[in-house]
Amino acid sequence: MEQAEIGLIGLGVMGSNLALNIAEKGNKIAVFNRTPEATRKFYAEAGELAGQIIPCETLEEFVAAIRPPRPIIIMIKAGDPVDQQMKLLEPYLSSGDIMIDAGNANFRDTIRRFDTLKDSPLTFIGMGVSGGEEGARHGPSIMVGGTEDSWKRVEKVLTSISAKFNGEPCVAWLGNDGAGHFVKTIHNGIEYADMQMIAEIYGILRDGLKLSAPEISKVFGRWNEGRLNSYLIEITEKVLAANDPISGKPMVDVILDAAGQKGTGKWSVIEAQNLGVAATGIEAAVAGRVLSSQKEERVAAEKIFGLPQTVAMPGTDGLSFLDDLENALLAAKIAAYAQGFAVMAAASKEYGWNLPMPTIAKIWRAGCIIRSQFLDEITSAFTKDPDVANLIVTPAFAQLVQETDGALRRVVSTAVMSGLPVPALASALSYFDTYRRGRGTANLIQAQRDFFGAHGFDRVDGVDKHHGPWGSGLNA
Amino acid sequence: MEQAEIGLIGLGVMGSNLALNIAEKGNKIAVFNRTPEATRKFYAEAGELAGQIIPCETLEEFVAAIRPPRPIIIMIKAGDPVDQQMKLLEPYLSSGDIMIDAGNANFRDTIRRFDTLKDSPLTFIGMGVSGGEEGARHGPSIMVGGTEDSWKRVEKVLTSISAKFNGEPCVAWLGNDGAGHFVKTIHNGIEYADMQMIAEIYGILRDGLKLSAPEISKVFGRWNEGRLNSYLIEITEKVLAANDPISGKPMVDVILDAAGQKGTGKWSVIEAQNLGVAATGIEAAVAGRVLSSQKEERVAAEKIFGLPQTVAMPGTDGLSFLDDLENALLAAKIAAYAQGFAVMAAASKEYGWNLPMPTIAKIWRAGCIIRSQFLDEITSAFTKDPDVANLIVTPAFAQLVQETDGALRRVVSTAVMSGLPVPALASALSYFDTYRRGRGTANLIQAQRDFFGAHGFDRVDGVDKHHGPWGSGLNA
Repeated sequence: MEQAEIGLIGLGVMGSNLALNIAEKGNKIAVFNRTPEATRKFYAEAGELAGQIIPCETLEEFVAAIRPPRPIIIMIKAGDPVDQQMKLLEPYLSSGDIMIDAGNANFRDTIRRFDTLKDSPLTFIGMGVSGGEEGARHGPSIMVGGTEDSWKRVEKVLTSISAKFNGEPCVAWLGNDGAGHFVKTIHNGIEYADMQMIAEIYGILRDGLKLSAPEISKVFGRWNEGRLNSYLIEITEKVLAANDPISGKPMVDVILDAAGQKGTGKWSVIEAQNLGVAATGIEAAVAGRVLSSQKEERVAAEKIFGLPQTVAMPGTDGLSFLDDLENALLAAKIAAYAQGFAVMAAASKEYGWNLPMPTIAKIWRAGCIIRSQFLDEITSAFTKDPDVANLIVTPAFAQLVQETDGALRRVVSTAVMSGLPVPALASALSYFDTYRRGRGTANLIQAQRDFFGAHGFDRVDGVDKHHGPWGSGLNA
Repeated sequence: MEQAEIGLIGLGVMGSNLALNIAEKGNKIAVFNRTPEATRKFYAEAGELAGQIIPCETLEEFVAAIRPPRPIIIMIKAGDPVDQQMKLLEPYLSSGDIMIDAGNANFRDTIRRFDTLKDSPLTFIGMGVSGGEEGARHGPSIMVGGTEDSWKRVEKVLTSISAKFNGEPCVAWLGNDGAGHFVKTIHNGIEYADMQMIAEIYGILRDGLKLSAPEISKVFGRWNEGRLNSYLIEITEKVLAANDPISGKPMVDVILDAAGQKGTGKWSVIEAQNLGVAATGIEAAVAGRVLSSQKEERVAAEKIFGLPQTVAMPGTDGLSFLDDLENALLAAKIAAYAQGFAVMAAASKEYGWNLPMPTIAKIWRAGCIIRSQFLDEITSAFTKDPDVANLIVTPAFAQLVQETDGALRRVVSTAVMSGLPVPALASALSYFDTYRRGRGTANLIQAQRDFFGAHGFDRVDGVDKHHGPWGSGLNA
C-alpha cells in the first residue's frame, strides 16, 4: 500500500477540516484520534476523499502508515495535552520524524518543545493556522516555525492546502523554533485591534447616528467595496444583516455585549511589553473585551452616571461624516498594523529569527481572519523597504496617513464629546501624534524621576547622565 | 553589649538612608556590606547616630549582633543578587529568623523565595519601600508581605521609621508572601500613569498654549493648592521653575525627551493582563515612555509628517480652559487609580491575600511618590465601602467624576484636534465611557467570532451558547 505523505492526530473540527483539505489536494494522509470512534466516523463521512485517507486505530499502525521522515500534525487542545500526546507518540518515531503542533500554542511552549527535541534525532515544527474552520477546510494561512530542513519536508503538502492570493500560496517558513507561533499570536493581536476598531465605529453609527443594524450593514457593505475591503468588513456587513430566527429582530441586537477571549490578545500585549514595543491598539482591544465582560458592573454604573448627551452629529445624510468614519477606520487600522509589525521586528531581533516582514504580510493576504487588500499594500511597502523602522513612514502609508488622519481626528473628537467610547481609535491617533512629534514631553518625566529618585537624565546638548539643580536643596 | 533590634545588608544610597532612619528613631541596628570599606565609611559618617549602629565586617559577627528571632533587611540590587545573598546568609541563621527583601522585587520572585523557606525554620518578608532616597531617610511608605508572625516581630521598628499622615503611620502588613511587593508594583504602575498624565497636560500648556516653563510652573503651583494637591504636582512646579546652571535656560528645556523605565510599569501591565483587568492608563504610560525613547524615529517622522496645526486654543487668559485642564487631570487621575485598585482587587482574589484596600490607600497618603490629599479621599471611600466593584462608583468619586468628566472631554477633544498627544488622558475618558455604558458594542465582536470561529454567544434573553443564523450558508 502507498504510504501517506503526512499524518494528523486529533479529529476535532479543525483537525478534520485540515485532514480533508490535505486529502482533497491529492495528498495521502494517515489520521489518528484518541477515541477510535471519531476516526471511524471521520472516515465514513469522508466520501470520495476516503481513498486518500488511511484511518488508524493505534499509534503504531499510524506511524507505520507514513512515509519517513514522517511529518505528523498534532491538532488538539493547546497546552498540556500537546506535551502528553508528544510523549505517547515519541517511542514510535524514528530519526528525522517531525512532530508538528498546529494548535494555538504560546510561542514560549513551542520554543521549549523545540529545545527538548534539539539533541534527539526527532524535530519539531510550531505552526500557526489561521482562518477558522472554513480556512482549515478550504485554505488557511499557515505560519511555520522550525528548522529549514523540516520545512522542506512539509513544504509541498502545506503549499497545496494553503489559501492563495492571486495564485501565491499563503504559507511560509518564517524562522526557527517559535517564529511561526509568535507571528500567529501577533496576527491574532492585530485581529483583536481590528475588530475593536470596527466595533467602535459601529457604536458611533448605532448610538451616535442612531442607525439600525440593517442600515449599518449597508454602510459596511459600501465600505467593503472601497479601501477597507477585507474579510472582517465583509462579515460585519453580513452579521449586521442577519435576523434572529427566534425573535425576528436583527441578530446583533439580541447578542449579549460581553466578548470572550482565548488568550492570544493577552499574549500579544505581554510580549509587546517584554519587548518594549508600544502596542496600544491591541491593549485597547483587550481592555475593551475585559470591560465588555463586566456587564453587570456597567449596567450598575449607567444607573449612577447616566449617559453623556450625544452632541449634534453630522447626521445620516451628512455623507461627509460617513466618509470620515471610513477614513478614520482606515487610519486607525494603519496604526494597529504598524504596531503589530513593530512587535514582530523586535521579537525577530530578540529571538534571532530574522522574520521576513514582506513574506508575513504576503501570507496574511488570504486565508486568515485579517485578510484584506490592505495587506497587499503592506506587502508592497515592506518589499520596497524591508528594514523600515515603522510601517507608517513608508511612502505609501505615510501618504495614506496624511490623507486620513484628519478624519480620525474629527471622529475621535466627535465621539469624545458625545460620550461614545473609542479607546482603540483614540489610541491610534495618540500613537500617530506621539510618533510624529520630534520633541515630546518625556523631558518632564525625566526631570521628575531625577528629582525623586536621582535617576539622572541625558541632555539635548549631548551630555549624558546629568542631574538637575534640585539636589538636596530643592528636595529638603 | 545590647543586641541590635534589626539588621541591614547593603549600604548603597537606599540601604544607608534606611539604616540611618532606623537608628535615628531609637532602634539599634547592625549593618553589613559586601565590601567592608563601605561599612566603615558609613559608620564613620553616621555622626551622632553611630551609637545606635553596630558595624559588622563578617556575616557571622553581623548575625550574632542581632536579637533573635532576627529580622534582616536585604537592600541590594533586585534579582539574582538577592538569591545569592540569601544563600550566603542562611547558614548563620537560626529558627524564626526573618530575611526581608526591601528591594523592588517582582512579586513572583518574592513568592518563590517565600515558598523556598516555607518548610524551613526560617521565614521571608517581601517589603515594598516607596519614597526614593528622601523617603528612605526620613519616612517611606512601607508595604509588607509575609506571615503575620514575622510582621509582629518587625512592626515596631517599621512603624517608627515610616512616614506619618496626620500621625498615622504609612506602613502595614498587607498579606502573605508576595502581597507587599505586588502592591508596591501597582503603586509604581499608578505612578507611571500619574506622571504621564501630568506630562500630557504639560504638553498642552507648552505646545498648545505656548507657555514657558516658568509660566507652566506657576500653573502647577496654583493647582497644588487645590484638589490636585500632591507630591508629584509639587515637584512638577519645582522642576519647571529650575534653571540649568550651564545654559541658564529652564532646566526642563535642556533635558532630552526620552524617558527610562526600570520594569515596574511593565510588570503592572503584564499582571493586569494575566488577571484580566483593564489597566489602560498604565498601558498608555508605558507606551508613552517606550515611544519617548525612540527619539530618532520620532524626529525622522516629524520630518515626513510635520506637525498638525494647533486649533485655536482658548488662550492663556481663558482661565476657564486652565480650569478645564485642572479638572481633566483630576478626572483622569481617578480612572488611573480606579484601575490600579481594580488590579489589586483581582490579585487579592487570585492569590488569596485578602488585601485591605482602605489600608493600602491609607499608607500611600504620605511617604511615597504618589502621596496626596486625593489618597485620603480614596481612603474614606474604601473605608465606607471596602468591597465596592470600582472606585468610580463610590458616592464621593462618582460625584467627582460627574463634576470633572466634562472638562476631560473638552480637553481631550481640543488636544485631539490640535495633534497634541494625550494617550493617557484619552484612555481615562474611554474607560469612563465604556464603564458607564450598560449596552456596549461587544455584541458585534461576539457575532463576528461566532461567524468565523463558531465560538457561540450568549443572548440578552438569557439563552447561552447560541449560534447565529449564518452557519455554513452565510459562510460558504
